[in-house]
Amino acid sequence: MKIFQHRPFGRATWKWHIQDPASQRLTWNKPPKSVLVIKKIRDASLLQPFKDLCIYLTEVNNMLVYVEKKILEDPAIMNDESFASVKKRFCTFSEDYDDISDQIDFIICLGGDGTLLYASSLFPRSVPPVMAFHLGSLGFLTPFNFENFQSQVTQVIEGNAALVLRSRLKVKVIKEHWEKKTMIQNGIEENGVVSSGLEKEMFKQAIQYLVLNEVVVDRGPSSYLSNVDVFLDGHLITTVQGDGVIVSTPTGSTAYAAAAGASMIHPNVPAIMITPICPHSLSFRPIVVPAGVDLKIMLSPDARNTAWVSFDGRKRQEICHGDSISITTSCYPLPSICFQDPVSDWFESLAECLHWNVRKKQNHFAVDEEEEF
Amino acid sequence: MKIFQHRPFGRATWKWHIQDPASQRLTWNKPPKSVLVIKKIRDASLLQPFKDLCIYLTEVNNMLVYVEKKILEDPAIMNDESFASVKKRFCTFSEDYDDISDQIDFIICLGGDGTLLYASSLFPRSVPPVMAFHLGSLGFLTPFNFENFQSQVTQVIEGNAALVLRSRLKVKVIKEHWEKKTMIQNGIEENGVVSSGLEKEMFKQAIQYLVLNEVVVDRGPSSYLSNVDVFLDGHLITTVQGDGVIVSTPTGSTAYAAAAGASMIHPNVPAIMITPICPHSLSFRPIVVPAGVDLKIMLSPDARNTAWVSFDGRKRQEICHGDSISITTSCYPLPSICFQDPVSDWFESLAECLHWNVRKKQNHFAVDEEEEF
Amino acid sequence: MKIFQHRPFGRATWKWHIQDPASQRLTWNKPPKSVLVIKKIRDASLLQPFKDLCIYLTEVNNMLVYVEKKILEDPAIMNDESFASVKKRFCTFSEDYDDISDQIDFIICLGGDGTLLYASSLFPRSVPPVMAFHLGSLGFLTPFNFENFQSQVTQVIEGNAALVLRSRLKVKVIKEHWEKKTMIQNGIEENGVVSSGLEKEMFKQAIQYLVLNEVVVDRGPSSYLSNVDVFLDGHLITTVQGDGVIVSTPTGSTAYAAAAGASMIHPNVPAIMITPICPHSLSFRPIVVPAGVDLKIMLSPDARNTAWVSFDGRKRQEICHGDSISITTSCYPLPSICFQDPVSDWFESLAECLHWNVRKKQNHFAVDEEEEF
Amino acid sequence: MKIFQHRPFGRATWKWHIQDPASQRLTWNKPPKSVLVIKKIRDASLLQPFKDLCIYLTEVNNMLVYVEKKILEDPAIMNDESFASVKKRFCTFSEDYDDISDQIDFIICLGGDGTLLYASSLFPRSVPPVMAFHLGSLGFLTPFNFENFQSQVTQVIEGNAALVLRSRLKVKVIKEHWEKKTMIQNGIEENGVVSSGLEKEMFKQAIQYLVLNEVVVDRGPSSYLSNVDVFLDGHLITTVQGDGVIVSTPTGSTAYAAAAGASMIHPNVPAIMITPICPHSLSFRPIVVPAGVDLKIMLSPDARNTAWVSFDGRKRQEICHGDSISITTSCYPLPSICFQDPVSDWFESLAECLHWNVRKKQNHFAVDEEEEF
Repeated sequence: MKIFQHRPFGRATWKWHIQDPASQRLTWNKPPKSVLVIKKIRDASLLQPFKDLCIYLTEVNNMLVYVEKKILEDPAIMNDESFASVKKRFCTFSEDYDDISDQIDFIICLGGDGTLLYASSLFPRSVPPVMAFHLGSLGFLTPFNFENFQSQVTQVIEGNAALVLRSRLKVKVIKEHWEKKTMIQNGIEENGVVSSGLEKEMFKQAIQYLVLNEVVVDRGPSSYLSNVDVFLDGHLITTVQGDGVIVSTPTGSTAYAAAAGASMIHPNVPAIMITPICPHSLSFRPIVVPAGVDLKIMLSPDARNTAWVSFDGRKRQEICHGDSISITTSCYPLPSICFQDPVSDWFESLAECLHWNVRKKQNHFAVDEEEEF
Repeated sequence: MKIFQHRPFGRATWKWHIQDPASQRLTWNKPPKSVLVIKKIRDASLLQPFKDLCIYLTEVNNMLVYVEKKILEDPAIMNDESFASVKKRFCTFSEDYDDISDQIDFIICLGGDGTLLYASSLFPRSVPPVMAFHLGSLGFLTPFNFENFQSQVTQVIEGNAALVLRSRLKVKVIKEHWEKKTMIQNGIEENGVVSSGLEKEMFKQAIQYLVLNEVVVDRGPSSYLSNVDVFLDGHLITTVQGDGVIVSTPTGSTAYAAAAGASMIHPNVPAIMITPICPHSLSFRPIVVPAGVDLKIMLSPDARNTAWVSFDGRKRQEICHGDSISITTSCYPLPSICFQDPVSDWFESLAECLHWNVRKKQNHFAVDEEEEF
Repeated sequence: MKIFQHRPFGRATWKWHIQDPASQRLTWNKPPKSVLVIKKIRDASLLQPFKDLCIYLTEVNNMLVYVEKKILEDPAIMNDESFASVKKRFCTFSEDYDDISDQIDFIICLGGDGTLLYASSLFPRSVPPVMAFHLGSLGFLTPFNFENFQSQVTQVIEGNAALVLRSRLKVKVIKEHWEKKTMIQNGIEENGVVSSGLEKEMFKQAIQYLVLNEVVVDRGPSSYLSNVDVFLDGHLITTVQGDGVIVSTPTGSTAYAAAAGASMIHPNVPAIMITPICPHSLSFRPIVVPAGVDLKIMLSPDARNTAWVSFDGRKRQEICHGDSISITTSCYPLPSICFQDPVSDWFESLAECLHWNVRKKQNHFAVDEEEEF
Repeated sequence: MKIFQHRPFGRATWKWHIQDPASQRLTWNKPPKSVLVIKKIRDASLLQPFKDLCIYLTEVNNMLVYVEKKILEDPAIMNDESFASVKKRFCTFSEDYDDISDQIDFIICLGGDGTLLYASSLFPRSVPPVMAFHLGSLGFLTPFNFENFQSQVTQVIEGNAALVLRSRLKVKVIKEHWEKKTMIQNGIEENGVVSSGLEKEMFKQAIQYLVLNEVVVDRGPSSYLSNVDVFLDGHLITTVQGDGVIVSTPTGSTAYAAAAGASMIHPNVPAIMITPICPHSLSFRPIVVPAGVDLKIMLSPDARNTAWVSFDGRKRQEICHGDSISITTSCYPLPSICFQDPVSDWFESLAECLHWNVRKKQNHFAVDEEEEF
């Protein structure tokens, strides 16, 4: 990052900096010792790579390997005697019971962009660097191929790698509930804010999600248009009438937002993208706002239907009048280890995954004035 | 700007910061004393506002007003005796002879987005804060209306204003010339790089431009498709076959790039936008890359025609095989004074200038399942 | 319609005709006597216009007015004694019991595009001409405003009006059911086609719909992409991966298809439009095919989820593996009476309903080379 | 074509027909005897195919082959003695001197979409059927590959082929000239309309063009936006502010119009497409109007610059205030012989030439709710 202190011009000052996207590199203060291996379960094709990787980490590199219990419960692993000695040295944990977020030096994912979204969800705060292998075809989030995994893992352990810090969105869903007054006495009042109602009380309940790709608010199973208001730093900036709206990170700009017509944003740009889904307005173009803003989405007062929200495609839930969804960039990005570098990796996946600007070389759109017959 | 020093996770570290778009405010170290007033010439409707403004600045605020000589040569000003006493106190200068870039505390523009582009061109390095009035209808770059100009100018002088630092692009056009050897002796060799040719020598000549909106490379008057290669940090990222390509700042994303289909980017996002113009490929979506990258554009080796480049719509020139256009974000943004704040001003102009998401409230796109007859 | 018989060129022949869009006019063989009045129910603002219209038709024009029973059951009409004498002369019917399709000379709709879709659904075969009033703001399907309704109705009765024949799509949903063999004996076999299975039998059941706007196949409440195959005249032309696909008439091209990014087609163009909804492919542009083709949509063999289909926004239902949706242009268009003519009416509603090409006159996208300062 | 005579419903009638796109087949009244062979000149790779084809037509099929003189002037043909005997039997002609339009039974094109545009330009009225070979890769207008050309040509001669009648646009450019009065006496007054001016006279001169793809009106080398009015059947329907506007046939919808964002229209749809180029308005979506309309384009009264018009990419010329461009569908379509049938050929070229909906099968846009880890 180059920071330019403005030479006091006349008498006004400001700060201005341009970040060099290539500058972020993986730096180990101490050599990493513990590694979390994430594997899609019930995919037989991943078994051998998983075993090979674990053996290499444990026996060759002397790393402490963390694996989820349910992975080891797979009979194909449980009954493999040749793998038993390696397995014994694993640290195991269960997603719902054990907090390993302080014990992991880095993460290795095997098997598709979904594994990275899952890894992200395990670390609601700081995330260790993630090295992600695609086993089939290249994904936006899985730049490494598994051939020569040994040398590639070694490079990472030795710190020879570039990082992309992928921003994540912190999303708070605040729901209003009206409950009969008597229920308070039954102990549900923990999140409740007592209202002035006589027989009913209004409770606010907030649940928080972290997304790597996007938050989607849509009309769900309704055949009405959704009708939601979008606020930015407290100002109503627009009302979305249409199938819905996508609030995405730059990482998510190549996912659902691209399908909805958005421009694609490199993950190193600190920004949030707002993209309407089939908007009821010819002039509703997607917009890109600074990463530091506060967004809020609510049903419009004149919305006749509820809306539905989902987080990286999961946890779909209904949003009613009075509920709100507040969205900010999280302080905890996901540091994703590059195969080559942030620029080459991104353009590689634009071409591979989205066929970006793939074209025939011939001249079908134009005719040559000078073409001769 | 909040900077988050990553709590050493395991043993890897990185830096991550999210800029708060609202944080940038006009700060005067000392009260401003000198102001440059820029006015579109030959527009009669601007005369009275110009005079009123100058009188207010000079007589009420005791500011030193800089004006270009050619403005004062307008007979309507020259012959106005009531304005003579004010005029006498002006500092005048000529664009081509005098460098005033160190003497101006802030700039006031009267008359349309073009005045701001002109102001930008006067300051190839650091630019003083700019307060821009639209006299007719609101523009993206001219947020202030002229009614109550006195109180608004006073607010600015007192430092009660928010700033948007609009990034600019530094564009270098490097042209190759082949000249007969004898010409060197005639003294043209200053930019020349002597090549190995026997009778001809290759010269490289670089001219630099600063743009606030965009650099456009297009096919010019040719009816062939243009065919240019785009490099990012030295890598060929794509070849543009089509009418051309726009490299724009976020400020420029609402100008020509919007017409070519780009998403619109808030000026506070540190980014560069690359937008094809009528590309010969259905999948060539615009992309947004970090402000810190180095771009280069050249004719493709197999291009059968030259291309043309222009800078904020001006200085149109031909680009031949071997020539290159290199583009980076300038260290010198244009600090533009907000009417309200960076967010409100931008959404205001999206609505006013581009009718962004203006729509009829009724339900023409969907039919109500429950509608009754 | 001009038909050009190709002057036998050399020795090959063909037929070619260009329809003149202005040529279609309302022609009465005998003066119309019976009129069906359709009114949105439970909308108080429509009551007075409805009564005024009925009185005018019955008492001034001596027409036989058909009204649905449920409209007259509205207390505001039932209890209006001043309206009783007019009401007595009405012919009433119930949608589900009475077939009036041979008894109506023309139709008048009051109250929004939905009334026209409803009118269309009442006439699965030939449809009488429809005169549609918007009571609020102009709609694509409701060109008449209610002021001066008398003179406008008189014009129509006298045959002074242009017609747009709006094509409709005939959609057959063919569903496969597997039933236990014993059920056949219980008499459900009417639509069944006996398969070779021993214990289960496969039944095919076809239900037919007519749409004026569009058939939509989408992923419904699933968060998977939908994955459907589209066949044209028996050939697989493409697979849609995304939120879904819209098959629309030209009339529907300004409805949901426009929201999904389609170009807009004048209703006089004999065509069918196929528009993907948020397709998982940057190059999936909408296409327009001739009105005479046969389309079929089925789940892709590798689709992991079902899809959902709806008809002009209604009758939403699930589509499973083996089911198919076949779509052709119906032989029975909806003749819609123009306010002015097919061209003016359409461009009027493009401007009013969709703000098509509404723009600010100023020059925000380009800068004038010659602009002077 | 199925024509449905509307069963007199009530008492109104109209005509309605749906053309079956598959119905148009090549029908020879008498076997064809004369064939025009069109070949791109100065392309060495076409020489052998050209000779092989001519030998096959002349010696095996006993056809009378027409070739342009300039093709035979190519030394590679002139000096080929083995080809001399075939060459002797050719009918030759020169584009500018000889009218062969009544003597040709069908046309064979070798070498790219441009050859078809050229063939079209030779026949301003009725065009014989065209069989077009691509020598390199498939084009929209050149469906035949040259392997097995013998059997394919035989099929065509025997009438085993489907036809697509590609509509063409007849474009009249009417230019106003002001000339000094004395010039009239020099005999230029043939198209002149004498105006009331004293010293100058206004002349109108009309030149006519036929296009197979599109007419383009753009800003040419100017950096101002173009500003043109579009009239349909005499009504001003919109003003285009932007880079320009494309009026295209369905055939042209996959050419420049596709690059400018239009939906793609099958050539059998009788329609004209109007597509803005980089319009200064977010809501300016392309539109499709019936083939039978009359269009007219003129500079807007408030246009500050001229515009430029071109025809299938050629004959570029300036359009000034007062000039007009009138556009209608020509009565003379170009009958293009299909390789398979109108539907298969079109979808084949959408895939091959434009990579339409080419995508990766994996699931990058959505995440599986049920995906397991």
